[in-house]
Amino acid sequence: MQFAGSHILSIGPFERPDVEYLFTIADRMEPYAQRRRVTRVLDGAILGAMFFEPSTRTRVSFGSAFNLLGGEVRETTGFEQSAIAKGESLYDTARVLSGYSDIIVMRHPQEGSVAEFAAASRVPVINGGDGTNEHPTQALLDLYTIKKELAGRGRGIDKLRIAMVGDLRFGRTVHSLCKLLCLFESIQVVLVSPEELRMPAAIVEQLRDAGHQVLESEALESSIKHVDIVYSTRIQEERFSSQQEADLYRGRFRLNQSIYTEHCEPNTVIMHPLPRDSRVSARELDDDLNDNPNLAIFRQTDNGLLVRMALFALVLDVVGQVDSHARDVNWYTAGRRG
Amino acid sequence: MQFAGSHILSIGPFERPDVEYLFTIADRMEPYAQRRRVTRVLDGAILGAMFFEPSTRTRVSFGSAFNLLGGEVRETTGFEQSAIAKGESLYDTARVLSGYSDIIVMRHPQEGSVAEFAAASRVPVINGGDGTNEHPTQALLDLYTIKKELAGRGRGIDKLRIAMVGDLRFGRTVHSLCKLLCLFESIQVVLVSPEELRMPAAIVEQLRDAGHQVLESEALESSIKHVDIVYSTRIQEERFSSQQEADLYRGRFRLNQSIYTEHCEPNTVIMHPLPRDSRVSARELDDDLNDNPNLAIFRQTDNGLLVRMALFALVLDVVGQVDSHARDVNWYTAGRRG
Amino acid sequence: MQFAGSHILSIGPFERPDVEYLFTIADRMEPYAQRRRVTRVLDGAILGAMFFEPSTRTRVSFGSAFNLLGGEVRETTGFEQSAIAKGESLYDTARVLSGYSDIIVMRHPQEGSVAEFAAASRVPVINGGDGTNEHPTQALLDLYTIKKELAGRGRGIDKLRIAMVGDLRFGRTVHSLCKLLCLFESIQVVLVSPEELRMPAAIVEQLRDAGHQVLESEALESSIKHVDIVYSTRIQEERFSSQQEADLYRGRFRLNQSIYTEHCEPNTVIMHPLPRDSRVSARELDDDLNDNPNLAIFRQTDNGLLVRMALFALVLDVVGQVDSHARDVNWYTAGRRG
Repeated sequence: MQFAGSHILSIGPFERPDVEYLFTIADRMEPYAQRRRVTRVLDGAILGAMFFEPSTRTRVSFGSAFNLLGGEVRETTGFEQSAIAKGESLYDTARVLSGYSDIIVMRHPQEGSVAEFAAASRVPVINGGDGTNEHPTQALLDLYTIKKELAGRGRGIDKLRIAMVGDLRFGRTVHSLCKLLCLFESIQVVLVSPEELRMPAAIVEQLRDAGHQVLESEALESSIKHVDIVYSTRIQEERFSSQQEADLYRGRFRLNQSIYTEHCEPNTVIMHPLPRDSRVSARELDDDLNDNPNLAIFRQTDNGLLVRMALFALVLDVVGQVDSHARDVNWYTAGRRG
Repeated sequence: MQFAGSHILSIGPFERPDVEYLFTIADRMEPYAQRRRVTRVLDGAILGAMFFEPSTRTRVSFGSAFNLLGGEVRETTGFEQSAIAKGESLYDTARVLSGYSDIIVMRHPQEGSVAEFAAASRVPVINGGDGTNEHPTQALLDLYTIKKELAGRGRGIDKLRIAMVGDLRFGRTVHSLCKLLCLFESIQVVLVSPEELRMPAAIVEQLRDAGHQVLESEALESSIKHVDIVYSTRIQEERFSSQQEADLYRGRFRLNQSIYTEHCEPNTVIMHPLPRDSRVSARELDDDLNDNPNLAIFRQTDNGLLVRMALFALVLDVVGQVDSHARDVNWYTAGRRG
Repeated sequence: MQFAGSHILSIGPFERPDVEYLFTIADRMEPYAQRRRVTRVLDGAILGAMFFEPSTRTRVSFGSAFNLLGGEVRETTGFEQSAIAKGESLYDTARVLSGYSDIIVMRHPQEGSVAEFAAASRVPVINGGDGTNEHPTQALLDLYTIKKELAGRGRGIDKLRIAMVGDLRFGRTVHSLCKLLCLFESIQVVLVSPEELRMPAAIVEQLRDAGHQVLESEALESSIKHVDIVYSTRIQEERFSSQQEADLYRGRFRLNQSIYTEHCEPNTVIMHPLPRDSRVSARELDDDLNDNPNLAIFRQTDNGLLVRMALFALVLDVVGQVDSHARDVNWYTAGRRG
C-alpha cells in the first residue's frame, strides 16, 4: 500500500506491513502529541474538515492532529445549511472544496458518500465515518491501542485473546476491528451479545478463515475470564421494540468493578469506542471503573491523535521531515496528566 | 481607487485600471494557491469571518485564501444564536468584533447591512454577499476567469462575445458582471432568459451606454452560436407559481454536451456561479459536460481563491512582501489535479 | 495564587496582588492587541474552545486572544449535537477533549458544570461563563477597564465612586464585580434598580464588610451625580410579568446624552457588559451616547482581549517569553481606530 497521495477510505487495502508501518510512525508522534516537542512540518498546509454529521470527538481529534503537525484547519459542519442539501451533487462539492485545501477529512451519514466524494476530489480524502459503512481511523486506533496495551506485557497482537461485548450486529467499530485482526495470527475472539445483536455470520467466517478461534456467547461473566482485552460497545435503545426490552438486555452486558475483580484476570484491559452511556440504567461500563488503571478508553482517544497524525504525515509524505521541523515546547505542561 | 485600508463593499468604485491591477496581483498568487510555494506574509494577522447566512463555498474560499497568506481565521456562523438576533445593533457588533481582528469578511441576508457594519468597523470590511445587493468578489472572480480563459486564445475582455443564460432578473452575479463589463470595450452580450426573468432594463441601458451590443432572446440554441463564453445561471423554483411552470422554463435553458457540440463554436467556455442544480429535472448544465475541457466552473472557484488572496494582500498592503516571506512546499502535491 | 497550570473557574481565589499582577501583564499585551507587534510565543499550542451556549463575543475574544499569542484554536459550539446531549458525562467529555489541547475555555448553561469538567480535565480550564454562576474574565476585564479609565485622571480603584444601574438581582457581572471591589479600599457604591431587581443582600453585606459605603436607590438621576463610573446593565423582559411592566421599569433607568450632561460630572465613565438592547423601547444606553468619549463600552471589549491574553500567558507560564518571540507588524494598520 502506498500512502503518499492516497485516499484512506477503508481498512480494506491495509495489509499487515502497512498497519505495522503506520503504528511505527504513530509511535514517533508521541513527543508532539504529549507536548514535549513542537513540529511545524505542515506549516502552510490546509486540512478541509467536512463534517456533514455531528461528531465532536472525531472532528476535534482530526483537527488537533493536523494542528500538531503545523497545519491549518478549515471546518464545515452541519448538513441542512449546505449547498448539498439544496441539491448540489457530491461531485460538484468535491471539485470545488478540494481546490481550497491540501487534504480533506469527511464524515457523512450515507454509506459510500465519502468514496463518491473522493472520486471527484483533487486532493487525498480520509474517511471520518460514512454511516454504517466504515470509520477506518477508529479501527486503526483500536488496534494500535491493543498493541500498546499489550506491549508492556511483552505480548503482541498475534495470539491475542479478546472479548467483544454488546451490539455486535450494528457496531461498525467491531466489524472493522475484526477485519484488521484477520491480518494477524492465532487470535481467540469471544463474541458476547444478545441473540438479536450477534456478529454477522460473514465476519465470523472471515475470522475463522484467518485461522482464529471464535466463540459466541450470551453470558458476560464466563466470557471475560481468560482474555487480554474486553472491548465493550454501546447497546442503543433504538435497536429494541421498547425501553424495557433494551434495559433488560443492557443489564446483562454491563461491566463494573466488582464483576471485573471477580471474573477477569489481573490487568485485563477494558476498551470502548465511546461515547459510553452515562445514564445509570444504560451504563455499559460503570463509573466505578474510572480509577481502574486498566480502563484504556481515554488512552484510546489519545492514541487516535497519534494514528491520525501518522496518517496525515504518511499521506502528505512528510514522515522524514517531522523531526527536522521541531523544537522543545516552551509553555507549561507539568500539570498535564496521562 | 486606493486598496490599502479600504472596505470592499461593492464593485462600484472599481475602475478599469483597478480591475487590471487586481488581476495582476491575482496572477502572482498562483504558486501559493497551487501549492508550489508557501508564503507566511500575514503570519499573526486575524481574519474575522462573519457569515450570518450559510455559504460553505464562499466562507471556505475566504478562509483558505487568508490561511494561504499565513493568517488565522476566527469564524462566526449562523444568525439565530447571535447577539444581533437578541436585538443588538450592527453598530455595536461591528465596534466589538472589529477589535478582535485585522480585517473582516461578512455575509448577511439583508441588503445594505454589510455597508452599515463597515461604517462602524475599526478595520477593513469585505462584502461576502449582502442579500440581493452585492457580492463583489464573485463578480471579480467571474471577470478574472473570463480574462484567463480567453488569454490562452490571444484574446482579451475587450471585444468579448458572451451569452448570459437563465434567471437574469434576480441573478445578483450577472448584474454585477454586466457592471464590470461596462469598464471594457466593444462587447457583445446575448441575454437569454424566460420573459419573466429578463435582465432589468437599467442594466441593459448601462451596457448600451458603454458602447456594447446587447441582444435579448428566449431561444438558447441560436443564442450560443457565436460567443466566447456561455454564462449559465440557476432558475430557482420559487420564482414561479408552480413546479410545472418552473420545469417548463428550465427545460428550455438547459445546456448539455449534444447541444454544445451542435451549436457552439469549438472551445466555447462554459461558466456558472454555482451551485448548479443536480436534480435531473432542474439541471441547467448537464453532468455530461463534466469531461468537457471548456467547462470552466471549477476553474472559476479556483480563481476565487486567487482573487480573494489578491484583495487581502492589497487591502492589508503586503503585496510587495508576499514573495519575500515564501519558501517551497515540502509536502506531497503530485496528485493535485487542476 | 499560582497561575501556572491552574484552572481559572471563579474570581474567588483572586487576592489583590493577583489582580494587580494580572493587570500588569495585561498592560504588556497592548502592543500585540493593537497590532503594533506580533508575538508567536504560543506557536504550536492548541486552545480547545467549548461553547455549549452561544456567545459570539466571548468566543471570538478568547479565540483571538489565543491567536494573538501564536496559538491555534479548535472550537466546538452548540449543545444539541454533542455526545453530551446523547448522555455522555462531563467526566468522559473532559477526559477525551483535554487530550486534544493545551488549555480549554468552556461556556455552559449549567451552574457548576465548568468546575465539574475541570476536575476531570488533564489541562487547565478557564470558565467562559457557567449559567448564573460565574464569568470570571468578564469581572476581571470590567475592573481592568475601571483601572485604566481612571488612571488617566491620576486615580486608582481605591476610593472609587461607582453607580451600578439596572438588573442587579440577576446580573452575574455586577455580582462578580462587587466581589472583586471587596479587595480594594474605601469605595462608594450606589446601587440603582427597581425594587424587584435589587442587589442580593449577601453581596451588599460583603461590600459593607469590606469597609465600602453602599447606597441603594430607585432614582437614576440623583444617583449618578457624584460618581466616577456609571455601570449600566440590561433589564431583561423575562424578569417581568408583562412587556408593559418591563417597559415601565426600563424607562426609568435609561441613560442618554441629555441626562448625562445635566446630571453627571464631566468625564464620568459609562460602562456596560453588553449586549445593550438596541430596540428604542428597551434602550438602557441611548445611541446618542455613541460619540461621547466617556462611553467606554467598546474599550471594555478591547480590554477583554488584553485580560484574556494575560491569563493565557500566565496559566501557560510564558509571560517572560512573550517579547522575545516578537517582531513588528508588517501589514496595514493605519486605518485601525481605537
